[in-house]
Amino acid sequence: MPILNKDMSVCISLAGRPSNLGTRFHNFLYDELGLNFIYKAFTTDDLEGAVRGIRALGIRGCSVSMPFKEAVIPLVDEIEPSAAAIESVNTIVNDGGRLTASNTDYEAIAALIAEHGLDPASRVLVRGSGGMAKAVVAAFRGAEFSDVTVLARNAEAGPALAAKYGYDWVADDPAPSFDVIVNVTPIGMHGAEAHAQAFSPEFIERASTVFDVVAFPAETPLVTAARAAGKRVISGAEVIALQAARQFERYTGVPLTREQVERASAFSRAE
Amino acid sequence: MPILNKDMSVCISLAGRPSNLGTRFHNFLYDELGLNFIYKAFTTDDLEGAVRGIRALGIRGCSVSMPFKEAVIPLVDEIEPSAAAIESVNTIVNDGGRLTASNTDYEAIAALIAEHGLDPASRVLVRGSGGMAKAVVAAFRGAEFSDVTVLARNAEAGPALAAKYGYDWVADDPAPSFDVIVNVTPIGMHGAEAHAQAFSPEFIERASTVFDVVAFPAETPLVTAARAAGKRVISGAEVIALQAARQFERYTGVPLTREQVERASAFSRAE
Repeated sequence: MPILNKDMSVCISLAGRPSNLGTRFHNFLYDELGLNFIYKAFTTDDLEGAVRGIRALGIRGCSVSMPFKEAVIPLVDEIEPSAAAIESVNTIVNDGGRLTASNTDYEAIAALIAEHGLDPASRVLVRGSGGMAKAVVAAFRGAEFSDVTVLARNAEAGPALAAKYGYDWVADDPAPSFDVIVNVTPIGMHGAEAHAQAFSPEFIERASTVFDVVAFPAETPLVTAARAAGKRVISGAEVIALQAARQFERYTGVPLTREQVERASAFSRAE
Repeated sequence: MPILNKDMSVCISLAGRPSNLGTRFHNFLYDELGLNFIYKAFTTDDLEGAVRGIRALGIRGCSVSMPFKEAVIPLVDEIEPSAAAIESVNTIVNDGGRLTASNTDYEAIAALIAEHGLDPASRVLVRGSGGMAKAVVAAFRGAEFSDVTVLARNAEAGPALAAKYGYDWVADDPAPSFDVIVNVTPIGMHGAEAHAQAFSPEFIERASTVFDVVAFPAETPLVTAARAAGKRVISGAEVIALQAARQFERYTGVPLTREQVERASAFSRAE
């Protein structure tokens, strides 16, 4: 990497607890592609001040993570449909002082639903009711799926999420009769629930597609079981790589090949 | 240089017309010393927003150039004597949200006056009445020089500067009877006045010390003539390197050797 210079464009991220993923993903590609950009993760206890700083310093792009995804909405100038659909922002682009917000998580999920050829007539079961579950459920609604059930223990967030997009909610496991099953809980993630599986074998057996939004590890117990059963698998690693690629393209104007995304993604995870 | 990471401390500069000097000087040394820092020049049309961004993003340090050196004063929490003496800031350090402002140009000039052993009883002639001339005149006052004359065509700024520090002002060349002559005008700088000499040969002949604050080139016609006449020379290159070193130490806590400063300074100028 060459020594920094004054003319570099700067992109940043804002997160309550910054990770190194974005910093490694973007800088890896800046370096590989010879772009005069740098990317650096930040946290803040003054979101309004941070956004004012983005404008005042001409910072080109900002990735937004928890807990700022909703709070940032009134601070930008334009909200794209991807962010409006779920009232949640993960990407800000600064065009000469005009801030446009979008949500590339939503876009990535919508793109993966299309790319994997999921049938809008499928019966879909989505487990979870947090921010990412909202992106998933909204993406199914955007793709005109009519039969989606939200499975969530949380008796407030669960029915609210289902109702918002015109779907059904169940608090407990329904009969295993779904074509597409989607995990949007932390079950299977590195940490306390690493060895748990978000759906029982009957659900996997009955489904044609298993979608696990957990990205760390890429191979969750659910993904491993789904692959073993010969099912179509969509992984959280695909979501996180695709959403980062879309941020990258927005910030730099440079589209990425699948191979570039995979290399940068592997680099960003290899720490 | 290793790829960037989320934990790097960030230092920036704010200038109306950013140069690459600071970015190259600081990053060269971060790299050489293995410090987990980056430095990047910025401009802004919203100084208050930029300073709010420095606080909100936890930016560790900020170098301040024209035209922000005075305007930034009400935006910080503490003014050190070096900045208070000339009502001008060129350095801000952020300690956990508390911004302390100083002026390392003033400090560098004061240090060079002491280091070169200039005698407070000397008769001093300072040519110029801009911001840097203020730093020079104030530094002579701080070092208890009693006989300083300000030579400046500008009939407002000249007498105001001299009066502020209790010295005399002249609009036209006085008799060449000064021990120390200091150029703080652009005469001899790269550009229109590159071949002009700020003082006539009689002044150089009579002086024991010639101080030229012009930093580009390091060898101005005045410096070349003074060296040829065997005079003690203090150059603008020394000022700019020393002030940058003092910023570096404030931002990182790491003191620099003379050799490190010279290497970084040469690197920053070699573009």
